[in-house]
This record gives sequence, structure tokens and C-alpha cells, in this order.
Amino acid sequence: MEHGGDLLTYKNCFDGRLVDFSSNINPLGFPEGLEERLKNSFDTLTSYPDIQYRALRKSVSNYLNCDYNNVLVGNGAVEIINDFIMLADRVMVMVPGFSEYENRALIHGKKVVRIPYKKDFTVDIDILRDLVKKDDLLILGNPNNPTGLRIKEDTLSDIYLLMESGGGYLLLDEAFFEFCPKDYNSIELFKKYNYRNVGIIRAATKFFALPGIRLGYGCASDKKVEEIRKIRLPWSINSLADISGQYICNNKKHIKDYIEKSRDYIERERDYLQGELSKISGIVPVPSHSNYILIKLIDWDGEYIFNFFLEKGILIRKCGSFVGLPKNYIRIAVKDSENNKRLIQIFKELNRLSEHKGV
Amino acid sequence: MEHGGDLLTYKNCFDGRLVDFSSNINPLGFPEGLEERLKNSFDTLTSYPDIQYRALRKSVSNYLNCDYNNVLVGNGAVEIINDFIMLADRVMVMVPGFSEYENRALIHGKKVVRIPYKKDFTVDIDILRDLVKKDDLLILGNPNNPTGLRIKEDTLSDIYLLMESGGGYLLLDEAFFEFCPKDYNSIELFKKYNYRNVGIIRAATKFFALPGIRLGYGCASDKKVEEIRKIRLPWSINSLADISGQYICNNKKHIKDYIEKSRDYIERERDYLQGELSKISGIVPVPSHSNYILIKLIDWDGEYIFNFFLEKGILIRKCGSFVGLPKNYIRIAVKDSENNKRLIQIFKELNRLSEHKGV
Repeated sequence: MEHGGDLLTYKNCFDGRLVDFSSNINPLGFPEGLEERLKNSFDTLTSYPDIQYRALRKSVSNYLNCDYNNVLVGNGAVEIINDFIMLADRVMVMVPGFSEYENRALIHGKKVVRIPYKKDFTVDIDILRDLVKKDDLLILGNPNNPTGLRIKEDTLSDIYLLMESGGGYLLLDEAFFEFCPKDYNSIELFKKYNYRNVGIIRAATKFFALPGIRLGYGCASDKKVEEIRKIRLPWSINSLADISGQYICNNKKHIKDYIEKSRDYIERERDYLQGELSKISGIVPVPSHSNYILIKLIDWDGEYIFNFFLEKGILIRKCGSFVGLPKNYIRIAVKDSENNKRLIQIFKELNRLSEHKGV
Repeated sequence: MEHGGDLLTYKNCFDGRLVDFSSNINPLGFPEGLEERLKNSFDTLTSYPDIQYRALRKSVSNYLNCDYNNVLVGNGAVEIINDFIMLADRVMVMVPGFSEYENRALIHGKKVVRIPYKKDFTVDIDILRDLVKKDDLLILGNPNNPTGLRIKEDTLSDIYLLMESGGGYLLLDEAFFEFCPKDYNSIELFKKYNYRNVGIIRAATKFFALPGIRLGYGCASDKKVEEIRKIRLPWSINSLADISGQYICNNKKHIKDYIEKSRDYIERERDYLQGELSKISGIVPVPSHSNYILIKLIDWDGEYIFNFFLEKGILIRKCGSFVGLPKNYIRIAVKDSENNKRLIQIFKELNRLSEHKGV
């Protein structure tokens, strides 16, 4: 299975100095002070983590502003999503979307229904209405990967009410939440329903730049939290991930500052990339709400562009593994200013070469 | 579910200075130099771990002395065992044994067959012969938990041949392997069969004193390794666990010295505890091969003894959650010399009190 961030496979390219535009990690790195905290926590390694992760769940409840009994934690968002899938009867996935939803469903022997997004990559509620059955699990990326599009608040409420009334369950994968414009917060939106038949998953992976730590967390009804507690793998979160989660979710001033600084940085760089990419002929960027941009290629195929950038020392994301997406798409991350400028330069170079060749 | 090492539940006892005899961790702590290595590895946290864990698997293959293609790695032994269970048709568990085998089997909707050990806690091969069917998975603790007994080499070969010829699969949980006397090595024993229908799981958890790091590893046929690769949760091993595994499996001299020192230490302390416990009336220790000792209580019940030790600042393992074991058993760990002496003193005190009361 093809994934972003697979630097090791390409480690011999460009003398090992590849810049990774294929995985979408906060370019500012993880919050200051975390290293120091971890350095002072090695003694925790000689004990099992708390099997109930009580301190971690308390911190997450503060960070998400939800009740302790509504908090889920896991070994990356993917473990929590996997647990939801295990409890489902049938799994509805939207295409194109993160391939692991369908993978995990098939691994657990679940029926899978693929639902295509509309041409503009928004959700087609009419299809959903026709399909939803009791105990269905609908997984929605919000924003979706690879499109970067966030669901509008009204649409999300409509989808929820439709799922809930049909006895289905709505699971929102919000791994990129903090990168997005401040429109609405689904944890606040669904509070009034006590998260009945809806779960929201977030993670330290992308925004807090900790893909190596493996920490996901989220919010669901206390009943669902209890159901998941009964089936989840014991001690699946490493002690240092446990401590990192407590650190980043502590709502202290310097963490809040880091969050705001990161949001501003990504917004500025996303605007820059969107603006510049729109000016380049032969490609059409999808207007993203997140820290990655899906790009439609008019004049080239994805493989050609992938190799062109690889030769220049840049790893971009081929999108061949995204079911429901034509081959002529690539995805890039919003990275630091310097590398983003370099990426645009290479696109311009590609443009010039093509004009030269009369493509 | 009751587990060892749950210090947090008892954190208010004895001013938080409880000595944990309930979980079986190498009292010498993790190998020297690991902290330094981890301190210099925090930059790995901003990238995903290698989804194939190639460097880790290479180190494990060196440590276990088996081929790279036979190496499994996972988020603690329990994740790997869980993956084997997912692939099984029916799961055979021995009682008393580690409760997670049965838990995980039931969670995945597998049929479970409980097979009692003989009165002396050895395996009853005749029962196995009658029961085994194609695609059965038999999980054996070797040494078993909570008894501490290792399976004799001849018996193990017999069990394997019986399982293999019946189309079943033998999974050995050898999480405590390095603590045991050097009799035979199942990884060498089953090499000649290319690990056909047999898997061996070990872990950094107990012997390398890293329960917080969550790292298990093992050995199986290349075919089984590939089957598990297809179903396992992606990136389930944290980057710092990945690095720790590479560090402890590097076969360097100071790690080899640590291993020998730990073995010698445990052997000496186990002999001390076995000897002293045998002299105390009213209890019968099971002769263990490992770093924990199961104790049969003649004059008391487990709950009484648990609370008696708790009041003295010592957490022992109640054995009520071990199916197939009468209530009058407790389990203690082999810890450092000073604490082991203290444990024996408290047993003697218990003895004196009972004589005084004429129990």
C-alpha cells in the first residue's frame, strides 16, 4: 500500500537529501519544551503505561473541551478508527479518501460501500440518504484527504441527522482540524447530542508534528467510549506518547501560542501556494482548507511529474492509490516558506520546459 | 480486567511508595546507554516510522539469529498475538494462562477452547491430540504465566508435531525467555522446519525492562510474516520504540554483558526466594523457571494476603483473574535483593501472626 512520507524507499535518491512534500506535517516542528519533558521521563519506561490512560484522557478532555467520559485515546488516529470499524456492521467510505478506512474494514471482514464525492469533491447527501442502514458506519475525512476540503457546517449537521435517524453512525476523521480556518468545531457542534451516534477523531500526528509518537484522540458518547474500551488492545499507547499527549494538551500559554503561530504560518503559506499554483498553466489546484493541496494535472501524468520532482530532490505524493481519483492528480504538502518557494520554482521550470517542447 | 503492574489504582496506598511485586520486570532496569540514544533521537518524531520497520527487523533478525524474512515486530507481544488470533479459525488456550489470549480471541469473534493444564501445571498432550482441528491456533506460554514453568524440549517437539500434522498452528509466547535457564532455544529448535505452522513471540517488555516502550518481536515462516503484514495496524510501533529495539538487539558487548548479568542476578534471587518460601509453613511455591513465582496458599485466601502485603507497602498479584486457578494462589515477582529479603520477612511475620492466633 502506497503512503505519504515513505522517505526510506527513496533514501538513495538525491544523496538522501530529499525534501518530503508527500507527508503533511506541521513545518514548525513539535512544541518547544517537549524534548526536555521527554528527557526527564525515561524512568516511566520501566513501568506499564496506565491501562486506562487516566492522566492522558484528563488532559485531552481539557484540550478538546469535552467531558472526560467522552474521551478516546489510541495508537494514532488509525487505531481508534480501526476500533470503530470493528464495532460496525457495514462501513461506508467516501472516494477519494484515506485508503486505510477501506483496508481496515476489509481486514475485519466488514462489508464496504464506496460512495463517490461529487465532481467538486463535496458530499452527495442524496446518495447517502438512499444507502444508509442501521449499524452502518460512515467515515468522513473533515477536511478530507487528499482533497483538503472541510465539510460546511450546515451540510455536516444534515449528514449527522440523516445518519442518526437511520440508525447509522458518523465518524469524523479530523486529523487536520487545527490547520483549518476557524469556522466551526464539531466537538462543540455535537455536544448538544451528547455525541449520540457520532465520533470525532483528532491526532498529535499532523498538527503537533509527531507522526513518530503515534497518538490519536477523540470524542464520542460515553457508551461508545465504553464499548471501545472493551475491545481495544491493552497498553497500545507508549509511555512517551502518553506523556507527549499530556504535554501538548495542557492548554498552557506557550502551547496556545504555538498553535496560533502554526495556524497563521500554514494559512499564509497555503495562500501563497494556492495563488502561485493557480497562475501556472497546465495544472489546477483544488482550493484546500488544510495543509496540503491536491493538484489536477492537465498536460502530464502523475508518474512523470513525480519523477521530475524526485530528480530535483523533492518527494511529492502520487495519488494512484486513492480509489475514485483519476491518475492525473498529485498532492503536495504546505511546508516551510523556503521549500514552498522552491516547489513553485520547479513547477515554473516544468512549465517552461513544456512550452519549449510545445507540449 | 485485572492486570499486574496497576500501581495507579493503589497510588494512595502507603504514601505512594508501594513496591510493585505484581509485575515481572527485570529489576536491573533497561540497558545502559539507551537513554542517551533516545535523547539523540527526538528528531525522528517528526517523521512517520518506516511502515515496514526494516532497520528494526534487521536488528531483531541478528538478535534472534533468524532470517530477516522470518521476523515479526509489534506494539508489545500482545499486538502480534492479536494478529495471529485474527488469522485463526479457532483458538485453544491453556488454563491457567495469560488472560489476554482468550480476551482477544473473543473480541475477534473466534471460538475458544480452554484446555486445563495437568495438576502439576504441565501440558496434557492426550487432550490436545483429541481436540486439534485444521486451522486451530494453540497459544502456549513458554514459560507459562502465572506458573513460571517452561515446556520440556521433548514435550514441545511432540506438541509441535501433533499440531502441525493436524493442520493446526502452535504459537509460543516466550515473553520471559531470557530469564529462564539455558536449556534449549525454540527459535533454533524450529529452524529446521522453516517455522512451518509455528510462531515464537518475545518482547522487550520484561527482560529489557521496557514495558512502557511497547515492543514485541518474534519469528514465524515467511508466509505467515507476509500474512500478518497484510492485516497489521500501520505504524503501530512508535519511533522511540523502533530505536530502542535496534539498540537492545545490536549484539554489542555491553548489551551481551547486561543480558548475562541480568540472567545471573535473576537466577540467584529466584533460588533465594524459592529456598526461603519453601521453608515457610502454610504456603507452597511452584518451582519457577522464570522471574516470578506462583504461590499456593494453604492457610489463607488470596484477598487476605493481598491486603496484608498492601499494608506493608508491597503490591502482590492476586490471581483471581486467572481462569482455571483456584482462589488460593498469589504471584510474586523476583525483584532486587533488598526487596526480596523484605518480602520474605513479611511472609515470616505473617507466619508468626498466624501461629500466635493459632490459625
